Amino acid sequence: MGPLSLNTATVRKQWNLAQMIDGCARHGIRGISPWRDQVAQMGLSDAKRSIREKGLTVTGLCRGGLFTAKDWRDDNRRAIEEAHKLGAQCLVLVVGGLLPGSKDLFLSRERIRDGIATILPEAKKAGIPLAIEPLHPMQAAERACINTLEQALDICDALGDGIGVAVDVYHVWWDPKLQSQIARAGKRILAHHICDWLVPTRDLLNDRGMMGDGVIHLPRIRSWVEAAGYSGFQEVEIFSELDWWKRDPDEVLRTCKERHARCC
Amino acid sequence: MGPLSLNTATVRKQWNLAQMIDGCARHGIRGISPWRDQVAQMGLSDAKRSIREKGLTVTGLCRGGLFTAKDWRDDNRRAIEEAHKLGAQCLVLVVGGLLPGSKDLFLSRERIRDGIATILPEAKKAGIPLAIEPLHPMQAAERACINTLEQALDICDALGDGIGVAVDVYHVWWDPKLQSQIARAGKRILAHHICDWLVPTRDLLNDRGMMGDGVIHLPRIRSWVEAAGYSGFQEVEIFSELDWWKRDPDEVLRTCKERHARCC
Repeated sequence: MGPLSLNTATVRKQWNLAQMIDGCARHGIRGISPWRDQVAQMGLSDAKRSIREKGLTVTGLCRGGLFTAKDWRDDNRRAIEEAHKLGAQCLVLVVGGLLPGSKDLFLSRERIRDGIATILPEAKKAGIPLAIEPLHPMQAAERACINTLEQALDICDALGDGIGVAVDVYHVWWDPKLQSQIARAGKRILAHHICDWLVPTRDLLNDRGMMGDGVIHLPRIRSWVEAAGYSGFQEVEIFSELDWWKRDPDEVLRTCKERHARCC
Repeated sequence: MGPLSLNTATVRKQWNLAQMIDGCARHGIRGISPWRDQVAQMGLSDAKRSIREKGLTVTGLCRGGLFTAKDWRDDNRRAIEEAHKLGAQCLVLVVGGLLPGSKDLFLSRERIRDGIATILPEAKKAGIPLAIEPLHPMQAAERACINTLEQALDICDALGDGIGVAVDVYHVWWDPKLQSQIARAGKRILAHHICDWLVPTRDLLNDRGMMGDGVIHLPRIRSWVEAAGYSGFQEVEIFSELDWWKRDPDEVLRTCKERHARCC
């Protein structure tokens, strides 16, 4: 089983990035995937120094993408630079939803493909692999209209080297083609995010569950990801307005570790 | 454009079936698709007589399926009989979510396929086409783990005649393969349900929008459905705890008619 990484969204309501870095070190979590607003708040140089001092691996930087928003070009250029400076293993792309005021999925998806193609050369130059994260179809309108692994891999096929996918179980667990598409992805799996799908789910964005508390067959998906050749970190990412964001963050990290060992 | 049919879920909090049938006639809506609990409450014979007197087409009966529940065998037998007696154009299958207590999508999907195969001969004998309705992936755990048109059509391919699909825009609008799978479905499109996807969506089940109030490109999907050879009713089905279920049902039906003419 891959080692645990903390996606810092998991405790974003309780801690700043400096506290998260310390928290990871204190709990023996060896990987971290920070969000750019947190990095900016701490300062890129300080964040880099602190992460290095604690010996953490930066399993990803969240996030680039949002290609249907206005300032996507500059924003992605900055994201690539930041990922490079932090030594991130990849830049996670949340690609953006429908173009403002539009119902046109075709056009929105075309813009997204073009946007990815535009930034890819820079990302390659910086040595930062781009990880397209297909988001759950319930987030198609507002956050990302790349919604299946198959769709993401079709784009990867078209664009060649330097690009792959982030497999977040929350977004893809339901997909009838998940096993075959994970196998197809192979070495292009750049990140493996974990959490759980709660029954019932009370919110479309911020009601994710802790591993073991929902219905996702985590060991099965892990076995597919490993069979595809991925041997990196498992990155826990839990958006949880109603539960985990309200808890003591040390309890959250302890629980992540314990569940990662037992349920994943 | 196909004529309008009323899926009775749309006003289920305000009216009983007798009132819905009268309402359709009063508003010049020529099709109706009732739910079985409403039919049972009114009485099957009375429902049949009233629908016939008003000259309404029964565009579907909701619903059969739930193959991962305990009493699926008898329940589906009854559903087929009721659909036959009502002269429904199809029996809509909401196939059921994960088996109780299980995280095994493979096993749940296998049971569902077996269940459909088991009831299909009876449905054919009764002259009732079975319409598999792929539900949105956000309803995979609890209501249906058939979640794409492609997956539904793979099952249809395996089972042969007497079975097709219900294309509900709410469930499938996000699908990158929607156009190609609608084309593939062809004459197996047995029903075409309409409503809209609201931004934001506040609930995973009961926050559907009125046509025109959301982001679904309804005319585009209709054009694909028509190009595939479907020329039947467009059936409006809106689950809306927070809005349309609270309104005067005559206003709801008037709005459905007006939006159907203008936005679909």
